[in-house]
Parts: sequence; C-alpha cells; structure tokens
Amino acid sequence: MVIRENFEKNLEELKRKIGEMSELSITALEKAFKALKTQDIEIALKVIEGDNAIDNLELEINQFAIWLMAKEAPVSRDLREIIGAIKISSEIERVADFAVNIAKATIKIGTAKSLLEITNLEKMKELAIEMLQKAVQSFTEENIALAKEVGELEDEVDRYNGETYKTITNYLSEHPEEMNQLLQLLFVNRHLERTADHITNIAESTAYLIKGQIYDFNS
Amino acid sequence: MVIRENFEKNLEELKRKIGEMSELSITALEKAFKALKTQDIEIALKVIEGDNAIDNLELEINQFAIWLMAKEAPVSRDLREIIGAIKISSEIERVADFAVNIAKATIKIGTAKSLLEITNLEKMKELAIEMLQKAVQSFTEENIALAKEVGELEDEVDRYNGETYKTITNYLSEHPEEMNQLLQLLFVNRHLERTADHITNIAESTAYLIKGQIYDFNS
Repeated sequence: MVIRENFEKNLEELKRKIGEMSELSITALEKAFKALKTQDIEIALKVIEGDNAIDNLELEINQFAIWLMAKEAPVSRDLREIIGAIKISSEIERVADFAVNIAKATIKIGTAKSLLEITNLEKMKELAIEMLQKAVQSFTEENIALAKEVGELEDEVDRYNGETYKTITNYLSEHPEEMNQLLQLLFVNRHLERTADHITNIAESTAYLIKGQIYDFNS
Repeated sequence: MVIRENFEKNLEELKRKIGEMSELSITALEKAFKALKTQDIEIALKVIEGDNAIDNLELEINQFAIWLMAKEAPVSRDLREIIGAIKISSEIERVADFAVNIAKATIKIGTAKSLLEITNLEKMKELAIEMLQKAVQSFTEENIALAKEVGELEDEVDRYNGETYKTITNYLSEHPEEMNQLLQLLFVNRHLERTADHITNIAESTAYLIKGQIYDFNS
C-alpha cells in the first residue's frame, strides 16, 4: 500500500507540473496578444525570452516521467497516464511556441497603424485559452466530458479562422500598401487555428488515457 | 541473455517501424510537392487520404512502445530509446501533416498559372527530405554525427525561407491579382521551414538518447 501511495503522490506531482506549464503558456499567450494589440515591442521581447522557462519545464516533466517509469515500472492505465503526460507536455510546449510566433509578428508589424480590429483574432485567442484550460483540467481530473467540450470549441475557432482569412485577404486587395502587417495577421490567424488543433490533441490524448480508446475530436 | 536478446529484437522492430513511417512521410511529401508543381488535384486528394495510414502507424508505434515498456521495464538508455521512439514518431507525423497542408494549398491554387518557379520551395523540399533521412538514420544507427549534420542543413532551409518570403511579397506588390496563389505559396514556405524545425527536433531527441544530454541544434 505504501508503494501505491508513493506512486499516486508522484503522479499528482507530475500533474501539478503539467498544470504549471499550462499556466505559464497561457500567460505567454495573453502577453503576446497584449503586445500585438498595444504594439508593445518590449512585451513581445519578454515573451520570446520567457519561452526558455517553458522549454525547461517540459524537459523537467519528461525527466520526471522517465524517472517514475524506471522506478515503478507501471502498467496499463498508470503507464498510459505517464506517457500521456509526456505527449501533453510536448503539445503545451507548442502552444507556447505559438505565443513566441505572435510576439515575432508583433515585432515585424512594428508601428504601422494596427488593423487587428478588422479580425476575429482576439476571440480566437480567448477560445484557445478556454480550450487549453479545459483540456488540461480534463487530464488532471480525468474528466472525459471536458475533453469533449474542447472538440466543440475547436469548431468555433475554425469558423472564426475562415472568416478572418476572408476579411484580411479582401482588405489586402484594397490596401496592398498594408501588405506587411496583413501577412503577419494572416500568419497569426493560422497559428491560432493550429494552436486549437494542438489543444484538441491534448484532449484526445486525455480521452485515450482515460478510456484506453482512440478519439478524433477534429473530425 | 535470452531476455536481453528478445529486448534487442523488439527494439529493432520498433526502429524498423520508425523507418517505415519516415519512408511513408517522405513519399507523401514528394507526392504533395509533385501535385503542387503539376497542379494535379487528383494526386493532392490522394495525399490527404493517405495521411490516415501514417497516423495509424504512429499509433501502432506508440502502442508497441508502451507494450515493450510494460513487458520489460527497461531502464537508463533502453528506456530513453523507447521514449525517443514515441517522441520521434510524433515529429514524423507532423512532417506528414505538412504534406497534407501542401496538398490543400494545391487544391486552393487550382488552375491559376503556376508561380512556383519564382520561389526556392523545391530546393527547400529536397533539403527537408535529406534532413529527415539523416535524422531517422541517426536514430536507427545511433549516429550522433548525422544528427549534427541535420542542424547544418536546417540553416540552409532557413536562408531559402527568408529569400522566398522576400521574392513572394515583392511579386505580390506588383501582381495583387495573384494574391490567392501567392498566399498559398507563402504558407507552403512557412510549412517547409517548420518541417525543417520538426526534423531538427528529431535529431535533438536522437542526440539526447545517445548521449543522455540536451542539444539545441536550432541555435
């Protein structure tokens, strides 16, 4: 029983680290978006610098997971949970990478008059954060209903993504002089759509480790 | 000794599956690019359909790896190799996803007169394939020198990527009527650059599992 208790404690610790990594990534995404909105290069640079801390946390999670497997030689669901933690941490790392991409776009846009308001990017960012919170919660609390909700939110992001593509390209036809900024906003649009995809992968991994069965919430 | 031999045999099988997944992804990338170049929607649709087989192989690799860990409870380098296989298969899956993205761009470009020749995209595709072959070989043969070469090739891809961005945006300024196609080519340009990044991750994972030490070939 003591062995089991120790294992449970270590698994809780692993989940706590995943939660922490998710919080850091959400903060990075919020900051990057604030930089984009207020055209604040200083904040954008801080987001880029801060990505190291998230990469290090991913590494720590991986090493902790490997140590836990070597120590406990877990089977079935326990093993799936640890593998799940490794896969989920790599998806969260990608969400943080997208924050870096948004920060880089902010720098490339510079001081040109912001056209952010013609897009749905802010709504998409809000949805992406809601998705990540639900996906990670579904993992830490082993709640499959939450994982399913993530798939539904992704459909909303996809819809906004399509609309934003049209809006930006129409605007570009009429204002070719704004090309630099509009291309950067198009990239951000695509990043947010990809971010939603990665978060859906987290939800699918979670559903898999809870049920031991494959889900595809993208389709 | 028999146990060790069995483990080695299973590890070889795992590596063989990784090699097979890599071959399938390279074929998908070649086909997608051929579709883009010859504007062949039929081939593009086949690439999109074929992606399922690659996803399934990734799943098979994951399940095999989990089974192997549960069965053998490996430690240190053996364990790192199995975890490495899981991480590498997820990177290869992303390379295959990029092939799907190129196929989708092909469909969106349709029958507009191709502007592919103004770009470096074909060279970037060639480099990406060379990188993937070297990265996977470095994993299956545990060859760290090959992993380092991957990092060097990535620098070349980055250079072509920057040039192509300039060429396409300059062309777009002068030919706004070609916007649809040019934006798709810009997305392909970015996908190929990201593909090179993911392949560099494979090389880094390989270096890590060989040496038990972290490398960052991106910087």
